[in-house]
Parts: sequence; C-alpha cells; structure tokens
Amino acid sequence: MKLWQKDKSSLAAVETFTVGRDREMDAYLAPFDVLGSLAHTTMLEKIGLLTADELSILQKELKQIYKEIRDGQFSLEEGVEDIHSQVELLLTRRLGEVGKKIHSGRSRNDQVLVDLKLFLRHELQTLVQDVKTLFDLLQQKSVQFRDHLMPGYTHLQIAMPSSFGLWLGAYAEGLVDDLTILQGAYKVVNKNPLGSAAGYGSSFPLDRELTTQLLGFDALNYNVVYAQMGRGKTEKIVAFALAGLGATLAKMAMDACLFMNQNFGFISFPDELTTGSSIMPHKKNPDVWELIRSYGNKLQALPNEIAMMTTNLPSGYHRDLQLLKENLFPAFQTLRNCLQMAGLMLENMQVKENILDDEKYRYLFSVEVVNKLVLEGVPFREAYKQVGLDIEKGTFVPEKAVHHTHAGSIGNLGTEQVNALMENVLKGFPFEQVDAAVAKLLQ
Amino acid sequence: MKLWQKDKSSLAAVETFTVGRDREMDAYLAPFDVLGSLAHTTMLEKIGLLTADELSILQKELKQIYKEIRDGQFSLEEGVEDIHSQVELLLTRRLGEVGKKIHSGRSRNDQVLVDLKLFLRHELQTLVQDVKTLFDLLQQKSVQFRDHLMPGYTHLQIAMPSSFGLWLGAYAEGLVDDLTILQGAYKVVNKNPLGSAAGYGSSFPLDRELTTQLLGFDALNYNVVYAQMGRGKTEKIVAFALAGLGATLAKMAMDACLFMNQNFGFISFPDELTTGSSIMPHKKNPDVWELIRSYGNKLQALPNEIAMMTTNLPSGYHRDLQLLKENLFPAFQTLRNCLQMAGLMLENMQVKENILDDEKYRYLFSVEVVNKLVLEGVPFREAYKQVGLDIEKGTFVPEKAVHHTHAGSIGNLGTEQVNALMENVLKGFPFEQVDAAVAKLLQ
Amino acid sequence: MKLWQKDKSSLAAVETFTVGRDREMDAYLAPFDVLGSLAHTTMLEKIGLLTADELSILQKELKQIYKEIRDGQFSLEEGVEDIHSQVELLLTRRLGEVGKKIHSGRSRNDQVLVDLKLFLRHELQTLVQDVKTLFDLLQQKSVQFRDHLMPGYTHLQIAMPSSFGLWLGAYAEGLVDDLTILQGAYKVVNKNPLGSAAGYGSSFPLDRELTTQLLGFDALNYNVVYAQMGRGKTEKIVAFALAGLGATLAKMAMDACLFMNQNFGFISFPDELTTGSSIMPHKKNPDVWELIRSYGNKLQALPNEIAMMTTNLPSGYHRDLQLLKENLFPAFQTLRNCLQMAGLMLENMQVKENILDDEKYRYLFSVEVVNKLVLEGVPFREAYKQVGLDIEKGTFVPEKAVHHTHAGSIGNLGTEQVNALMENVLKGFPFEQVDAAVAKLLQ
Amino acid sequence: MKLWQKDKSSLAAVETFTVGRDREMDAYLAPFDVLGSLAHTTMLEKIGLLTADELSILQKELKQIYKEIRDGQFSLEEGVEDIHSQVELLLTRRLGEVGKKIHSGRSRNDQVLVDLKLFLRHELQTLVQDVKTLFDLLQQKSVQFRDHLMPGYTHLQIAMPSSFGLWLGAYAEGLVDDLTILQGAYKVVNKNPLGSAAGYGSSFPLDRELTTQLLGFDALNYNVVYAQMGRGKTEKIVAFALAGLGATLAKMAMDACLFMNQNFGFISFPDELTTGSSIMPHKKNPDVWELIRSYGNKLQALPNEIAMMTTNLPSGYHRDLQLLKENLFPAFQTLRNCLQMAGLMLENMQVKENILDDEKYRYLFSVEVVNKLVLEGVPFREAYKQVGLDIEKGTFVPEKAVHHTHAGSIGNLGTEQVNALMENVLKGFPFEQVDAAVAKLLQ
Repeated sequence: MKLWQKDKSSLAAVETFTVGRDREMDAYLAPFDVLGSLAHTTMLEKIGLLTADELSILQKELKQIYKEIRDGQFSLEEGVEDIHSQVELLLTRRLGEVGKKIHSGRSRNDQVLVDLKLFLRHELQTLVQDVKTLFDLLQQKSVQFRDHLMPGYTHLQIAMPSSFGLWLGAYAEGLVDDLTILQGAYKVVNKNPLGSAAGYGSSFPLDRELTTQLLGFDALNYNVVYAQMGRGKTEKIVAFALAGLGATLAKMAMDACLFMNQNFGFISFPDELTTGSSIMPHKKNPDVWELIRSYGNKLQALPNEIAMMTTNLPSGYHRDLQLLKENLFPAFQTLRNCLQMAGLMLENMQVKENILDDEKYRYLFSVEVVNKLVLEGVPFREAYKQVGLDIEKGTFVPEKAVHHTHAGSIGNLGTEQVNALMENVLKGFPFEQVDAAVAKLLQ
Repeated sequence: MKLWQKDKSSLAAVETFTVGRDREMDAYLAPFDVLGSLAHTTMLEKIGLLTADELSILQKELKQIYKEIRDGQFSLEEGVEDIHSQVELLLTRRLGEVGKKIHSGRSRNDQVLVDLKLFLRHELQTLVQDVKTLFDLLQQKSVQFRDHLMPGYTHLQIAMPSSFGLWLGAYAEGLVDDLTILQGAYKVVNKNPLGSAAGYGSSFPLDRELTTQLLGFDALNYNVVYAQMGRGKTEKIVAFALAGLGATLAKMAMDACLFMNQNFGFISFPDELTTGSSIMPHKKNPDVWELIRSYGNKLQALPNEIAMMTTNLPSGYHRDLQLLKENLFPAFQTLRNCLQMAGLMLENMQVKENILDDEKYRYLFSVEVVNKLVLEGVPFREAYKQVGLDIEKGTFVPEKAVHHTHAGSIGNLGTEQVNALMENVLKGFPFEQVDAAVAKLLQ
Repeated sequence: MKLWQKDKSSLAAVETFTVGRDREMDAYLAPFDVLGSLAHTTMLEKIGLLTADELSILQKELKQIYKEIRDGQFSLEEGVEDIHSQVELLLTRRLGEVGKKIHSGRSRNDQVLVDLKLFLRHELQTLVQDVKTLFDLLQQKSVQFRDHLMPGYTHLQIAMPSSFGLWLGAYAEGLVDDLTILQGAYKVVNKNPLGSAAGYGSSFPLDRELTTQLLGFDALNYNVVYAQMGRGKTEKIVAFALAGLGATLAKMAMDACLFMNQNFGFISFPDELTTGSSIMPHKKNPDVWELIRSYGNKLQALPNEIAMMTTNLPSGYHRDLQLLKENLFPAFQTLRNCLQMAGLMLENMQVKENILDDEKYRYLFSVEVVNKLVLEGVPFREAYKQVGLDIEKGTFVPEKAVHHTHAGSIGNLGTEQVNALMENVLKGFPFEQVDAAVAKLLQ
Repeated sequence: MKLWQKDKSSLAAVETFTVGRDREMDAYLAPFDVLGSLAHTTMLEKIGLLTADELSILQKELKQIYKEIRDGQFSLEEGVEDIHSQVELLLTRRLGEVGKKIHSGRSRNDQVLVDLKLFLRHELQTLVQDVKTLFDLLQQKSVQFRDHLMPGYTHLQIAMPSSFGLWLGAYAEGLVDDLTILQGAYKVVNKNPLGSAAGYGSSFPLDRELTTQLLGFDALNYNVVYAQMGRGKTEKIVAFALAGLGATLAKMAMDACLFMNQNFGFISFPDELTTGSSIMPHKKNPDVWELIRSYGNKLQALPNEIAMMTTNLPSGYHRDLQLLKENLFPAFQTLRNCLQMAGLMLENMQVKENILDDEKYRYLFSVEVVNKLVLEGVPFREAYKQVGLDIEKGTFVPEKAVHHTHAGSIGNLGTEQVNALMENVLKGFPFEQVDAAVAKLLQ
C-alpha cells in the first residue's frame, strides 16, 4: 500500500474506487434510460421547455440510440461517467446544443430512479413469463405421473403414500404463491419517481402525471422525498421476490438430489444431463440440480444483503446505494437460467416404476387400513389398536391401492383449480398496458 | 454436563428439550385452534363422520372454550403436550367419548397449519389497522407542517430546500408500499391447508371446499404436499412484510434521532417522552426512537433467520419448523408497539420555526435561482455559470421563497392522491368477508 | 390503538416499551455486576475515594449479595430499573449512605460493559468445557466404530468407502476449529472496559490497570471511545463463535437424520430417544436431531441479526444496543442443551453392521482396484480403462478390504494427533488465571 | 425460454450454466495450484510414484508456469475446464506423458481444497499488512490530534468532552480486535487438506506430513472427511474476519460522513477527495466514505450468504460449493481498496479548531465540574444538585480545560500500550515460516 499523498496515482485510485463496477452495471440500464428520456422530453415540450421542433429532432435521435442499444452497437466510451452522460454526449455530438436540453428539469438522481424502475419492471415481466413456462411443465408432468406412487416422508421417515403427481404439482402450486409475492413487488416498482429531481423536487412546473402515463406506470411515487426513499427499498422488495422463487427451486433441487441418490433411487436423468464416471457407473452427479440449489440459496441471501447496506441510513440520497446493483442486476438472468435448467431436467426426468413394491414401504399403508376400518364403522381407537396388533404379529396385509378423493389429494390433484389460481394471479399484472405504452413511446 | 445414560433424568431432559418454548407459543394459537375445530366438525357431520347431535354438542362446547380463551381462563395443563390436546382433553372431560371424534380426518400437522394461518391472518389484519392509524397521523402532520421548511440533504450534505410536510408525507406514502407487500403476504396466508393431514392427504372423503368457506379463506392450498410445504415459507413471507414496516419505522427513527441532535436541532419532544439529565439540560435522549429503530432492525433480520432455518430441508414435515414461532409470534405485538410509540412521538413533536434563516443554509436556494433564470429564458449552462460567479464573488442573494408546484413537491404534497393510493390498497383486503365468516362460525 | 395523548396510560406504555425485557435480561448479569463492584470499590479505595472502612463494609455486603444471587434469593424489585440500581438499593438499605458511593467514577454504560464482558467470559468458559466433553465422546466413538465401513458420498451419490470412525472423527476435529474461533472471541471479550464511563472517560484518577488485574482480564480496552464501541461488536463476535458450533451440530444432525432414514438405514436409536407410532413400526422420528439442527441454524442467523441492529450507527452509545441481549443471552443455554442432547444421542447410537455388503455399494471399490493396479505398476490411464471395461462387461470383482494407511484415513484415524490439536487450543484459554482472580475477589 | 429438448443448444446451455463464472474464479487460484503441485510431486517421488528424474523435470516446468502466471502470461484456454486441467495440459504439451503423473494420488476435490487454503492464507497475510499500515496511520493521527477537543455524543446527544485523538485511536484499537479474529481465521486456514482426495482418502501411501511441511502449513486437516467438510466452513470463517474489518471501516465512514455534514462541520477534506458543485460551495460530498461504508456493509452480509448456501447440506462434497467463490474472492481486493482509501482520506483530513468554543457545547463540561467538586470533598449528590441549580439559574461557568489522566482517556491515550497490543497480535501470525516454506518450494 503506497503513501497517501494526493498525487496523480492516488487520485486515479479514487476515481477507480468510486466508479467501481458502475459502468458495467449501467449497461443493464441503457435502453430504459432512453425510454425515460423519450417521456421526459415529451413532457418538457408540453410545459414549454422544448419547442415542438426540438422535441421532434430529439425523439428521432433517441429512438435511433434505442435501436443501437438493442442491436448491441452501444457502449460507454472511455472517460464517460455514466449511461446518462453517454446518451447526452451522443445527442450533442449528433444534434448540437439541443442535445443538452434533455437534462432540464431532472437530476441524475431521478433519472437513475426511473431507469431502475423501468429495468426492474421489464425484468420482472420476463421472469413471470419464464415462471409460467415452468409452471405449465410442472402441471403437465404432475398429470403425466399422477399414478406413479412414491413414499411420502415426515421427519425424513417413511410415512404415507404420496405420488409424483403430488410432488410435481406441489411445486407448481408453490409458484403461484411466489408470483403473488412478485406481483406485490411489481406494484411497488410500477410507480413513477421521475420529477423528484435530487429527492426534493423542482421549481419547474413538471407534469409528472404525463410522464407517468407515457411510461405506462400505474401511479406516481408522489412525494418526492419518498420517491428517493424508495431506492434501496424497491431493490430489497424485488430481491425478496426473486429469493422466493430461488427458495422454491432450491427445495425442488434438494428433493431431486435426494431422489437421485441411489438409496432412494426414485428418479434418474439421461447421462448428458449428469456428470459421471466410467468406473462408477452408478454415479450420476446431479450438478445441474446442485447449482440450481446453490443459486437459489444465494438469492435467498440477497434481500438481507440489501437490508444490511441500507439500514440506518437517514433519508436522502447516499452513494452507498450504487453498490446494490452488483448482485441484484445479474440475479435476474441467473434465476431465469435456473428456471430453464429446472425445466430441462424435469422434461427429461425418468421416474422409477412400482417404487412402493419394495418391502421397506409396506407400513406406508397402515394409516390407510385404519381409515378404511373407520369408514366401515369401527371406532378410530379400536381400528388403530387392531392394525397395530396385526403389525406386531406380522399379520398386517397392506392394501396398496390408494383411494384418496378429496381436493388436492393423490386421486384428485386439483390441476384445473391450481391453473385457475395461476391465471388469476397473472391477470393482476398489467403487462398489456405497459407494453402498449412502451411501444407507443418508441413508435 | 452429565453422563449420557438413558436414565430418568436424561429422558426428562429430552422431554424439556423437545418441548422447548412450544407450550408458551401455543398460547398464541389457542382461539384459532378452536375456530379450526368448529369448521372441521361441521364438515365431519356433512360427510357423515359425526351425527347432527354430536355436532351440536361439540360445537356448543367448542364455543364455550373459545369464550374461556378470550376471557383468559384457559391454559395448558401440566403434562398436556399442546393446544390441540388440551382442547380435546377439555371436550372429553366435559362431553365424554364424543370429544375424541374431532380429531378424525386430520392430523396434528394440518391442525397446526390451519391454526398458524388463522393466527397470522388475524395478526395481519390488526396490524393493517394500526398502520392505517399511523398513516392518518402522518398525513395530518404532513399537512400541519407543510410550510415548515427544512434543509434537504443528499450525501448528508445540505442540498436543497425541503419541508416537514414532505418529510412526514414521505413516510406516510412509504406505508402504502409496505401494505402492498403485506397484502401479498395476506393472500398467501389466506388459503386453507386443512385436509392435508400429515402432508399427504387422507382417505376420508373430506370436503375441503366447505372448511375453506367456513373459515373465510379465499382459496385452498390445494395440493396437500404444497399445503405442508407452505410451512416456513408462509412464515418467511409474513416476516418480510413485518420487516418492511420495521425498516420504514427504523428509518424514520434514524431521521428523528438526527433531527433531535443539537447540531441539527430541528425537532424536540416533551420531557416526558425523552430521558435527560438536570446537569445536561440540552440532553434529551431519544430512547423511544432508538428502540423503535432497534426493534425495526431486529425485524429486518427475521426473514433471514427463517430462511436459514428452513433452507435445504427436503419436502415433508420436519420438527425444525417448531422453532420458527419463537421470534415470529411476539414480533406482531412488538411491531404494533412501535407503531403506537411512533404515533405518540409524532403527535407530540415540536418543530423548530424558521430553520432556514440560519446562514449555513443560504446556498440551499442556489438551484432555485438557476431554475428561475432558466424559466425566464436564460440558457441553463449560462444561468448556472452566473449563479456560480455570484456565489464566488459573495454577491449571491438567495430568494428564500420556494415555488414548487408539481405533484408531490413542497407546494403540492399530493395528500389526497396518496390517501387514494392507501384506500386502494386497503380495498384489496377482504376483512369484511373474513370477519363475517368467523362471526358466523362463532354464532 | 388509542389516541396519542401524553396521558398517564401513554406514559406507562412508554415505560413498558423502553424497559422491554431488560429486567429479565438483567438477571443473567446479576452475579457479574457484583464482581464488577467488588473490583471497582477496591480501586476507589486505592485512589482515595473510599476509606478503608467503607471498603470493608461495602465488600462484605457485596459478597453477601453475591451469595444471595447464587442461592436464587435475589430479584429485581418492582419499580427498580436495572440490576445496578437493585444492588445499590440493597447496599443503601442495609448500609446507609455509603452504599451510594459504589457508583463514583463509573456510569451505567461502563458498568453494563463490564457486566457483559464478565458474563460472556463465564459463558464461553462453560461452553468450552461442554464442547470438550462432546469432543471426547466423538473421539471415543470414532475409535469404537473405526472398522464399521459405510459408503462415502459426493454429490449425495455413492462414491468411495468411508467408515463411522471417519464420520465421527470428522465432527470431533471440526470442534477443534470451532474452538479456535471461539478462542478469538474469548480474547476480544477478556479485556476490561471499566473506567470508560459513558464512553469518554472520567476526570477521576481511576486506576484501570488495577481493576483489570482484579477481574482477571487479560488487558484493557484502553481507549474509552473504543471500550464503548466494543458493545455490539463483542456480542457479534461471540455470536459468530456460537454460530460456528451451531453449524457443526446442525450438519451432524442433518447427517444423522439422513442415516436414520430407512432408505439409508445406517444408524438407529432406542425408542426412548425417538418418537414413533405403533402402526408405523419403521418410523422413528429423529425429533432430537431435528431440533438440534434447527437450533443450530437459528444460531447461525444470530450474528447477522446483531450486525443488522448495529450497522451504520455512529460511534457513541445508543439505546439500540439494549435489544441485542434478547436472543444472545439464552443462546448459551440453548447451545449447551444441544451439545448435551447430541452426546446423549451419540452415546446411544446403534450402527448397522456390514452395510457395504449390499449390492448397491459394489462400485464403491472401483477406485481402490484402480489404485491397486497402479501401485502394482500399471499406468493409471490403463488401469482406469481396464476397470471400466470389467464393470461394463460385468466381470468387475470388488475387493472389499480397504487398505488406507495415510494420516487421517480409514485405517489411520489420527485420533492422537487430533487430540493433541484440541489440547493445544485448550491451552490457549487462561481459565485458571481467570478463576483464580474471581476466587480472590470473592474471598 | 426454449423447449426443453436435449438438443445441442440445450446441452451447450447446461455447459454454460454449470461452468458459470468458475473459470474467472480459477484465475485467482492459479499460482497456488502450482505451489500445491510442487509439494505434491515432491511427495510422490518420496513414496515412489515418481522417479527422481521425473520429479526434476516436472518441478522445473511447474516453476516456469508459476513464473508465467506471475508475469500475466497464463490463462485458461478455450475448452479447458479448470485451472488444474490447464496446468496439466501445459505440462503434458511441454513434457509429454510425465505431465499426467502429477494427478496421481489426489483428486480434483483436494486439489481445490489446497488451492483455496493457500489462496486464502496469502490474501489474509496481505490484508494484515494493509491493516497494519492503516493502524499506524490512525495512531499517528491520534497523537497529532490529541489536543483537538470535540463533543462526545451518547444517544447522538451532546454528552461529554471527547477529542480527535480519542476518536482516531478508538478505530486503531478496534483494528487490534479485528486482527485477533482474523488470526483465528488464519489458523483454521493454515492446515493442510491435501491427501484427502475426494473426501474419503486414498489407498496410496501418501505422506501428508511431508506436504504439510513443504507448503508451510501449521498442521494437517487430519480426518479426510473433515478436510472436505472444511470447505464452506473455512470460507465462512474468513468472510467473518473480513466482515469485522468491513464493520469497523463502515462505522468510521458513518462518523466521517456525519462530521463532514455542515451541521457538525468538524472535519473537511480537499476538493480532490470529495465531489461538489460550483453553485453549492458548501457541498462536499463524501463519496469515498459512503462507498467505504457500503462496501463494509456488503462484506458484513457475506458470512450470512455463505451460511445460507451451505447450511443443511449433508457431509460430503456438493457442487453448491463452487458458487461461494464469486463474492468471496473479489472481497479481499475490495477490502484492501477500502483500507487504502480510508488511509488517503484520513491523511488529508482537516480538523476544525476550537470546536467546543461554540455555545451549544457549554454543558458538555457540567459533569467535569461535578467531578471536580467531588474531588474537592463535596458529596456527589450535593455537587450534582449545585451544578444543576447553577445551570438552571444561568450562572453555570464551564471550565473548558479537561483533566483526564487515567489510561485510555483524553489526556492519556495509551498509544504505546495499544501499539503493544497490536504487536502482540502480529507476533501470532507465522508469516516468516510460511514465506520461507513457499520460497523454498519455488527455489
């Protein structure tokens, strides 16, 4: 470590330290920054801070830049601090002085806020679609394997009959609740912070309702102090929504690793989807599932990280917030990868037939026999005693057919009803309006 | 540590260890356990497992027990393992054999699940009401102090003019988002797990739709494996909703402690609400705020605790889940206390007049002056340069009137709109239907 | 929620809120508060703030109070705020005005600090002894079961031969590292904060070296600002030491639950130590292990809770710190219970014989055969290929004897060397000096 | 999301998913992998698995590769899975078949384990040196500013006189405790896992004591199951050591931001080290401190992340462990950057003179006056009352000289003693032996 003089190399180190990975993170925000500027400039013209001609020129070029971003022809130039400056630089280089006018009536703070909101909103929408795809597969597989019985465990002890239909359907239904939470996060995200400037508003007569409508937001973050306060909070809420999905996938992965273990031996996967060894032919390592589990758990730690980095900060912007991006931004792609990999594995999963024929599962059915006696009129305590004695004497004969008929049971999975729950949640996302607004902005 | 023989004292230690604080925690669940039994018995009669007479006798006595619980005349007797056993014991003692019949068609597992859901649902409802009360106070105070200007900080550096109206209103609006998240948690909670038995369903022809309706649940946890899988997950989701409110209160408390600090000196509180010292008359310790902050942060750690205790557990019940109650159950009361204490403090808060008259805040208004010049037609870069020069030469004259008019700004707090946002969230809670269902069960 | 008037009931609520569970927590500190006062008064006499007679009277009574605490005859009286006040009250009641003199030259802050340090030091010492007891048992069992082979898993897939000797010895060796970390925590704890007053020192000529020596501390927390800053930090460090032990126990418990599962079926426990069901005779629920696992994971969340509650607090005392006690103080007993329960289970564990005779483990030995060929001179790649072909053709004959001889392997557990590692760590704890100092204070 | 066929693109996606960022992470391990191979091959020759000639050839080339790594001329080639394979590939390409022999008697698992241990050991050593550099600066500045009084706060309320000497010295002393914890982590790291193979040892007669000595490890991880179990645990322990330093820096940064705030105005920094605005000349944003705080808090969340990703995994290797590297490996550089930046800021910090002359601090000295009266013989309660009355009547005259003489107080900072504490901790690190062993390996 060198001496601490304010010499050139120290100052360069300060620069490197404060910029950190922010330029890399800004790449995620680029298209959304342009969307924000399209709405902002429309509004500036409406309140008289741009002429109609200026607006027209600016919008044409902003759309061009948007196209370049989408085509991968955009990057931060050396020495340009952030995405906002890069866009402004391009505009000015191409259009002259008018390019600078897009910054009127906003500050870097509310520009980042709106970029973040638009980015998060877009990522959440993409995620919902991927979750729905996995949900559909789980439901399809649940039906396909509805008659494949397996032991159900409590305390990790063999307990009662279950089925692969139930097991797969359980995770499908879990995704419904996960999306319910994600929808709450989406609602918090889908409010417009633009116009809050540095967190204390502006003396310009900004029309915040207009930008809200143009950007397809559901409502405003009205209070400008709150708009700023939402930073960190919003990320934490979104991270929790991701963590919920991560937890569901991690649990499924834990089950899969256990069921692939040779002592269980319930499921298997093609060689191409596992790693193995020619001298240990029984060994099919579930690396994909293990990494899904590990990514899922990493996601579970993310809301806590954000809380740790933001708690006890007084109100008002702090530079601390910059670092929240580093683990959050890539998390969306990670989670989508996990969803896709889980789908690939489930699609190619082979389920062992007749698992319950193994003698070790014979007592699985003892409760069934008790219940049957009860339904035939034997008092419960007596039925229980009788079956216990039969087991003790070795005369217990399990009846291995399972007659569960109530909602959500082996014989009545409730697939349609769970599909309806999912549809009901999906209806609560205003994706069409949002897509329409964005499309209109880009027309 | 003694030797590890399986003698009497060791076995008593095992008993003590496994019971832990569970009897204490069960007290929270008592009334909800009875509600569950009221619905369950109604259903048992419908499917023929109870006669109409048996039902009538059982329900009468269950309602009596409910009343005793509400009156504080109920407790777990020595040697009784849990709340469910205690209720069954009372029924049997008072009614004879018929008392035992309430256990038909369910297991301890789904009974705990439904108790938990009903308890959490009730606590969330109570919490929403207390949050609304604080919201109303914040909004009222926001209007009351709308003209009390204060400095706004970024990077904890004096930046732009703000107001107590904005500051208070920001926290009010924050509660709207917090309740949005809490509503997601409520929806996850408000689904019926009863009928899932030990997590694998039952061979009894249970009518789960009926108990769902009787208990006022919005829907079923259909899949019985998922119903069990919801344990831990539900608690984590609820904990996150509490954590969100905790974070909001903690941030407010941090601000309050800072603003009470004599270097800021913006707000003060009556002596009765602070602690002080006769020889340090300036010292008014904000113990109430500090504890609100600390409780808020403790809540923020709760979802992580639950995640840590449940992650990587395979599907199916594990005894691990028992311990989730210990920090979660008391958290509701803690949070309600914090809401009430925050209200008490805010109600009695004195705000210093004319804060911005202090010379140190003179440059707060420099951006205002720049913007004013821009609105008068001076190009932004020129206006900025001119004001910079005035400041450098010492000729800068701040115009301390603030003319912010856009939505959510100092001069236009948007109180009505934020109230509307809150009303909109509140409408999403089905409290009336739930209350009606519960009232009907208890009739 | 009632109105927020500063009426009597509100103020009582404030009192209840600020006191919280602190009186309950203070009970843990009582004996250590008296120890602190014994040292403090000795020092006061030395610097002339007490006469020799006063000292003599005070110390006699303090020792009497210490005895009452140890005999369970001490409690906080109604209306007494904290342990320090209660001790001072008793002294004054019994001795008159001189009782008040014990408070000279210290403040509540450094009194709490020293109480905490003495309490934590004592708890850590007790814990070390209990850890050592479990270590000894694990080592003994490791030797007892050295020849009981079992499959070793990687990726939860059957991989290579292992043994119960290795498995048990691994956890023993793990405890050595856990105590290494705990020793670091002990060193941080074992420094004297007394004399730092409210965190800024005192104008009294306190002799802090003397109290350091009297209380058996290894050194001072010299800087008075740091002495106060150590609060929260010390608790977090101690919590991490507990969390490490919790993690080790939780992992062992996870293994035990898996190995008790009937698909593995490696180990079993007497009925008295499991819970079961007469109609599911195979079911022996490992509730004790599950709760050890859950407590262990709860402990793992504790350092994070403390970090969350203390991060971003500026230097100087804050009331927030009060709440750190609630989950930390009972954690010592919880962990000791877990250590004892783990010992009870291990002592009574039955290990299945000849596990590896099962056909499903035949390929465990393939690597052994490859290595044997290599040692006989066959190049590795060739040996590998040959064994792979044998397996493919079905002509592979596993040689089930395991000849591992290197340090720490199946055939050479290294028990003595690991015992030596443990002894080496234990030598680093200055328990004798500390005990001697405390004994001398209480003479 | 595409369909889930096992087609080429799916399999490529699996490859991408499982590799993740592991190749990037492996770059951190490269030099240590070579060190491990140098020791391993020496041992192989000793036990007869390499000839003396083979050893000589291999070691020459390994040293060459080490040099290439240090010179930045080394990277993973396209299609090469990991660092171990790359090294083996280079050896084979350059030396022919003998290159493959370095893999005898070890597996990828214990190779990663030893690489990790060597990497972590090296990073911890570098870190200790940087911490010591900051410690020295803090101590030097503490002495420099020993007479610069400042207010001391409790509850963030002005309480007692303090000094910059105390404030700076407190953080220096804090680093001593942080290094004590880090030393515990170092001890856990500095044990040799090599020879544990896949976690169950090897039938080769490995001489693990020899590799332990060659690599400069303090001892072995004897038990091979424990050697593998140490993965994840070691990372968590190291992360906690980093988190402790992060917490100390974050707290210092919080103080600095507060003291730079204009309401405090105690300290300032040159323009080059802050960011500002020409129209808000008072605004000097403490971005460097804010980012130190944020990085520090991010570090505080790291042990929890690792715990979350590893808890409840049964013993034995799991692929989950791969992902622990991603946040941990870059954390060392981050922390070192923060240490350096903190040093740069402190070196250039300007401290305001005569802070306590401000009227608002007049009551800071009231306790001093009370204590002075007590030392003159006035009973404490009377002195206290008298000063209280003087304050009430407005006749209180603070005596602003502070006469604190006891150890660790304003007038007696204990710099030498704290330096001695630090030296004592530093002596506990066996850096010289380790450096000597590594140098000998590379000779």
